[in-house]
Amino acid sequence: MVRFFVSPEQMNSDRIVLTGDNAQHAKVLRMKEGEQALVCDGQGRECLCRVLSGGLELVVEQRQESRTEAAVRVSVYMAFPKADKLEHVIQKATELGAYEIVAFPSGRCVSRPDEKSLRKKTERWQKIALSAAEQSGRGRIPEVVVLDSFREALERAAKADRGILLYENERATTLKMALEEAPFTSVSLMSGPEGGLEEKEVQQAMEAGLRVCTLGSRILRCETAPICALSAVMYAAGEF
Amino acid sequence: MVRFFVSPEQMNSDRIVLTGDNAQHAKVLRMKEGEQALVCDGQGRECLCRVLSGGLELVVEQRQESRTEAAVRVSVYMAFPKADKLEHVIQKATELGAYEIVAFPSGRCVSRPDEKSLRKKTERWQKIALSAAEQSGRGRIPEVVVLDSFREALERAAKADRGILLYENERATTLKMALEEAPFTSVSLMSGPEGGLEEKEVQQAMEAGLRVCTLGSRILRCETAPICALSAVMYAAGEF
Repeated sequence: MVRFFVSPEQMNSDRIVLTGDNAQHAKVLRMKEGEQALVCDGQGRECLCRVLSGGLELVVEQRQESRTEAAVRVSVYMAFPKADKLEHVIQKATELGAYEIVAFPSGRCVSRPDEKSLRKKTERWQKIALSAAEQSGRGRIPEVVVLDSFREALERAAKADRGILLYENERATTLKMALEEAPFTSVSLMSGPEGGLEEKEVQQAMEAGLRVCTLGSRILRCETAPICALSAVMYAAGEF
Repeated sequence: MVRFFVSPEQMNSDRIVLTGDNAQHAKVLRMKEGEQALVCDGQGRECLCRVLSGGLELVVEQRQESRTEAAVRVSVYMAFPKADKLEHVIQKATELGAYEIVAFPSGRCVSRPDEKSLRKKTERWQKIALSAAEQSGRGRIPEVVVLDSFREALERAAKADRGILLYENERATTLKMALEEAPFTSVSLMSGPEGGLEEKEVQQAMEAGLRVCTLGSRILRCETAPICALSAVMYAAGEF
């Protein structure tokens, strides 16, 4: 079923008029009177609607909590990578059910957007999350958060039940060990940029309370590691 | 350490001369006398070498089995997707340790390369696997296999200890249930093209002995599903 995200305010009414991108989308789909559509507030509430004549107005038939959100809240922390890799991770992490995607700078980041371009880029990233959320049938649009410093990222990531740093030079501690220590409802998965994290950054992460884990003996690209880890966490949490 | 793949025949000698793409790569890296390099036969054997003067000849110092290959053999079966998605899956699946990648046609495949272009494409796909194997430090280059029919893919996939079909309309059986039934050393993970598999194809897969599994309540893109499932299988098999 087609899915539209609207503002929480729009959701409060019993009739919902599609505007902007949603209206355009509805026109492309040639939505007809009597068809059903799902409208979500992007925060986990949904309503099943029926299309009225004209194709852009919907009447709410049933309200429900989204059934496609993961029970576990996984935040994906990624050091700014080059070019379109962050976009790739935002799209895939959204499909895979991430709660949010957090981008942050680290010592070896070669590409850190400047203040000026950042606002525009963040808007673009948020749109990618929205579009992936629609396509994958999510009830929530993951927020794309941009942080100013590595320190800030560490402090924020450490607040989860399980704060994990994925590091290619770690040999002993596996992701499984870290996850199986105790039950969890929130996980932070942090990983580095193309050149990896610096040793002192890994040290800082440990001091901040993060567990440093391996993703196995093969070296993963910086855009593969978060997707691999997120998939494994969702599997471990019983999502599939 | 830099890693070169050579033929098993070249590996038998105590001196290895780099040629072709390897020689070019060595020149780009400006390899110097006395440096170390790892040479692999792409089938799991490796030797630690030292560079001789000139930078293109290596002397074997130590032979060993590759330590980066997964104990579990996972074959990724993917119905031909559009454009560059298969290339993406080949690259990522190689990084994540897949044993082989098998492409096959299914009813809703919109893009099936013709006989003529297939040979060239297979060559290209195999090069992507080689390059990803080098970069991720693998001891084995996964073979990219192209099959002629869906039926053939089913029969081949069903031979693994665990033959699994990932299907978005499955609700009851999770990947975890299928994996935890009994120990396994080989797994086939099959998934459909953009439009999904047809119901009768899913029926055929069940008849061929495949277990039909869900990857959770979110709809994954056709290029995300195999990567997600492969990551989960590697996690379940104790790789990380």
